[in-house]
Amino acid sequence: MPASYAYLGPEGTFTEVALRTLPEAATRELIPYVSVQSALDAVRAGEAEAAFVPIENSVEGGITTTLDELVAGTPLMIYREVLLSITFALLVRPGTKLSDIKTVTAHPAAQPQVRNWLKQHLPDAAWESAASNADGARLVQEGRYDAAFAGEFAAARYGLEALETGIHDAENAQTRFVLVGRPARPAARTGADKTSIVLWQRDDHPGGLRDLLDEFATRGVNLMLLQSRPTGAGIGNYCFCIDAEGHISDRRVAETLTGLKRICLQVRFLGSYPRADVQPTEVRDPLPGTSDAEFVSAADWVARCQDGRF
Amino acid sequence: MPASYAYLGPEGTFTEVALRTLPEAATRELIPYVSVQSALDAVRAGEAEAAFVPIENSVEGGITTTLDELVAGTPLMIYREVLLSITFALLVRPGTKLSDIKTVTAHPAAQPQVRNWLKQHLPDAAWESAASNADGARLVQEGRYDAAFAGEFAAARYGLEALETGIHDAENAQTRFVLVGRPARPAARTGADKTSIVLWQRDDHPGGLRDLLDEFATRGVNLMLLQSRPTGAGIGNYCFCIDAEGHISDRRVAETLTGLKRICLQVRFLGSYPRADVQPTEVRDPLPGTSDAEFVSAADWVARCQDGRF
Amino acid sequence: MPASYAYLGPEGTFTEVALRTLPEAATRELIPYVSVQSALDAVRAGEAEAAFVPIENSVEGGITTTLDELVAGTPLMIYREVLLSITFALLVRPGTKLSDIKTVTAHPAAQPQVRNWLKQHLPDAAWESAASNADGARLVQEGRYDAAFAGEFAAARYGLEALETGIHDAENAQTRFVLVGRPARPAARTGADKTSIVLWQRDDHPGGLRDLLDEFATRGVNLMLLQSRPTGAGIGNYCFCIDAEGHISDRRVAETLTGLKRICLQVRFLGSYPRADVQPTEVRDPLPGTSDAEFVSAADWVARCQDGRF
Amino acid sequence: MPASYAYLGPEGTFTEVALRTLPEAATRELIPYVSVQSALDAVRAGEAEAAFVPIENSVEGGITTTLDELVAGTPLMIYREVLLSITFALLVRPGTKLSDIKTVTAHPAAQPQVRNWLKQHLPDAAWESAASNADGARLVQEGRYDAAFAGEFAAARYGLEALETGIHDAENAQTRFVLVGRPARPAARTGADKTSIVLWQRDDHPGGLRDLLDEFATRGVNLMLLQSRPTGAGIGNYCFCIDAEGHISDRRVAETLTGLKRICLQVRFLGSYPRADVQPTEVRDPLPGTSDAEFVSAADWVARCQDGRF
Repeated sequence: MPASYAYLGPEGTFTEVALRTLPEAATRELIPYVSVQSALDAVRAGEAEAAFVPIENSVEGGITTTLDELVAGTPLMIYREVLLSITFALLVRPGTKLSDIKTVTAHPAAQPQVRNWLKQHLPDAAWESAASNADGARLVQEGRYDAAFAGEFAAARYGLEALETGIHDAENAQTRFVLVGRPARPAARTGADKTSIVLWQRDDHPGGLRDLLDEFATRGVNLMLLQSRPTGAGIGNYCFCIDAEGHISDRRVAETLTGLKRICLQVRFLGSYPRADVQPTEVRDPLPGTSDAEFVSAADWVARCQDGRF
Repeated sequence: MPASYAYLGPEGTFTEVALRTLPEAATRELIPYVSVQSALDAVRAGEAEAAFVPIENSVEGGITTTLDELVAGTPLMIYREVLLSITFALLVRPGTKLSDIKTVTAHPAAQPQVRNWLKQHLPDAAWESAASNADGARLVQEGRYDAAFAGEFAAARYGLEALETGIHDAENAQTRFVLVGRPARPAARTGADKTSIVLWQRDDHPGGLRDLLDEFATRGVNLMLLQSRPTGAGIGNYCFCIDAEGHISDRRVAETLTGLKRICLQVRFLGSYPRADVQPTEVRDPLPGTSDAEFVSAADWVARCQDGRF
Repeated sequence: MPASYAYLGPEGTFTEVALRTLPEAATRELIPYVSVQSALDAVRAGEAEAAFVPIENSVEGGITTTLDELVAGTPLMIYREVLLSITFALLVRPGTKLSDIKTVTAHPAAQPQVRNWLKQHLPDAAWESAASNADGARLVQEGRYDAAFAGEFAAARYGLEALETGIHDAENAQTRFVLVGRPARPAARTGADKTSIVLWQRDDHPGGLRDLLDEFATRGVNLMLLQSRPTGAGIGNYCFCIDAEGHISDRRVAETLTGLKRICLQVRFLGSYPRADVQPTEVRDPLPGTSDAEFVSAADWVARCQDGRF
Repeated sequence: MPASYAYLGPEGTFTEVALRTLPEAATRELIPYVSVQSALDAVRAGEAEAAFVPIENSVEGGITTTLDELVAGTPLMIYREVLLSITFALLVRPGTKLSDIKTVTAHPAAQPQVRNWLKQHLPDAAWESAASNADGARLVQEGRYDAAFAGEFAAARYGLEALETGIHDAENAQTRFVLVGRPARPAARTGADKTSIVLWQRDDHPGGLRDLLDEFATRGVNLMLLQSRPTGAGIGNYCFCIDAEGHISDRRVAETLTGLKRICLQVRFLGSYPRADVQPTEVRDPLPGTSDAEFVSAADWVARCQDGRF
């Protein structure tokens, strides 16, 4: 079997563009899947080496479908992440003018990112959801809708033209994608890393979540994402998907995970991997004593005390 | 203008069913709107007295569209909440058999609730999203799809029949709805209340979120929901939608809000209102000193000390 | 009865010198007592308006006799504090040379402050404790010992001369004295104040004392003294004498006291009074949201929310 | 040199009685010293193998002379502790009646333990301090005072008789003594151990001490003693002598020490040793996740994650 990567298809979406930014993608067969679930199932079944799916964007927050797949079922692990700036083009059949547009389509996730633009420029256009942005472009090609929001790169594939480009409601609109595989030894520490976990509380009581976050805070570990997800045990029952700065081989992170493992009902490790923004882990000012060197020398000191050499 | 309630339409959805459980709904004109946004805009514009929209369900967690509307724009306030158990019926044109079904539709929010059922009973059916579950039923009526997941109550309206009822992946599948209006004096304390707020941190540093949660924990206030939502300032920037036990007129809650207001960049009060589950606020064991009586007598003692009478 | 102040005698000690720095001392009869206990009992019995006693010094820490008297018995209250720099003179009968000195005396509290000086200059001199430094000077006058450590001001009174002055082991050796009276309305807030309390924990468990200190920390209240004292219930049972920055009429202090009163077994308020060092209460950097203005505006905001005006 | 133990003399005090309860004392030469300082200096100088001194009692709390010696100077280490119940006898020359007693003496530390008894039975007797309780007995023998408070065992040595025995103001009056030596590998863990340390804060800010105590609390480590001691840098500057439950080879204690070492300006390890009360370290209820087994399995889990085996 040639090594292959599954990805959330169809072809011609932002996901594929993001995937192709990974050097290793050049040497794999890239196979589109119809859903995040099916792409990840392909990994679980051993049909694909890894799957590439969106996990967070700056408008919608955590992508719940992806998070829910990582939270439940056979454990998977995040190997890499990619950040992609997202701007939409308004794709139409050649010759269409803005005033001709009565219906627009795109994946539902695109809607919040183009909502304001629509209000301003096409307040009367009817919105219909498409299965993907690429599929929306296809439906415009087929004449079913007048215009589709999609990446500009999709125009050529579907014989459309971009009436407008650079559409995005929020500045710095970005989507974060992850390459997910089966559990393995985490990628080597780079100094600019991120660790993803899922936490389930033992029970629900005042201060419960505070105590979990205290494990990070007392070691100076910064949180990058905290997204609650229903556990399935009824309304009000949540687990927490957390991204934290640093690598599991950093002592501050390893200690934090140890503490969490003790006090949580369950902890699922989702991997340590290089940050796409290549920002080195920062040890911040109000927390003296949380630098790498201080962690090491403190552990050494305790060992010396245990030996009577102090 | 007759008093009216806007609600997330169309007619014949779970939302309408939930709304009709409110006694006050009987005396209002109930007007369906095509989106959460438009229903809430109707309130902001003074066209409706209040709007009734879903805010959380046991499968998807917080309904992000609703939360995002409450987080931003002209402040609104939650007056009431309703809990509704959600089970789906598979609606088909009379005569359709399970083996005839090639395409199914429903609102995207229904998908995670019927996913497993589909895998087991209709593994090959193609899913297409509809604008609402009621709209999905209409599209089945029109012959566009073979079957729709919707509330059983929608069958009659669209001339369909329920091939299967009681479909829900998770036990205790429930959706929580809220009645939202313009800012007003909160409903009177009942002893079984909930307070909703949105918090923005001053800056992002280790321990930042822990410190916010500490304000709840030190007063024995239990959290019922913590949902992060993007602030729009780029990936990794979140505010927090929080539901806490208790009423703003409870000292423990008022003190907590005071503390949060001091240390947060911004706090948005979304209201105190009776809990739909009518569970009285519980003061839990590991936290002595957090009962109502202890809050009162402590404040009295400080006042006496200030007066020299101790 | 003319208004009188009791003080820890005898005459001619540092205590009397410190007492005379208080303007109000000029208009009172100043009566020496043989012990801290007897001076405070005079206040409790109504024989004296207030008592002036040492409470902390930079070498010995909290003066346990005084703290224990304030902790137990009929409640008293601190009205004022005085800081006095302490340096000793070595007092001898006229004509005595350093090499003549075989025995030295002073109050036991003086010993740690002159220990190093003794080791260096009179390594072979025998130390005998005196009931007070003034009493030591008297015993030298009577010829019982060769030299006494006392304030230079005591030389004249006992016909001695100072062989050496400015003796103190630690730089910045200071003693803090307090004027203690019966409970009354605390002195008005000056902006540079201190509040003294005693805390008893409900029970002894991991995190118990941390939780008490959390009440100060979350409001940005700095501690100036934390001295544990036995409760009398057996070894390992302690209460905590605490001095905190600020005045009970400061919201941050009043809120802290309210929180402590709730969660402690018992809290004894010992008064709010001007700091002798006249350092204004500082609101420190790592704790945004703890300024006076922020406390006030947060309380106002909660009141507005309660009224529906937000 | 025969192995010898220094102890706080003179002979015939509670200290000697306590020392003789240690089995190893039977095989050492026991040498009385005139002060805690001189006994500990003998250890530092290599003249004695260890020194036996009081460190805490149920009436006075921490014995500051001992704590200050352990806090400063060449590091020493606590090897063992002994608990002794303290009750005083009133020793007089044979024939003396209660009504004959005008003057009483004892070490100043005895005073708070007999204060109430004196008030009741000898309200008019004058108190003079002695260098030790044994020395007080000697002074009575010499006729200088009428009566001395001392251990009943001292009567025979000084030819006195006990007019009254079992005198103690507080129930459960106990003194804790420690055997102090040069740094060495700590005694083996017994499961009922105690660890002593001294902490210096980096700087003084709100929450500083809370953060130190948080290191204990988050690991479920209970405090048995917290005694502040002046650092010598002027009034208000304190370090903290702390006794905590458990042994440095317990993971919960080793982790706590590591955390403290990171965030403190300085930590001095004073030893791990068996508790004299033989109470096993208790892992308390409100802190799930702090049992020995949970510490071990959490560390194992992190190691497996680091290896990709999870």
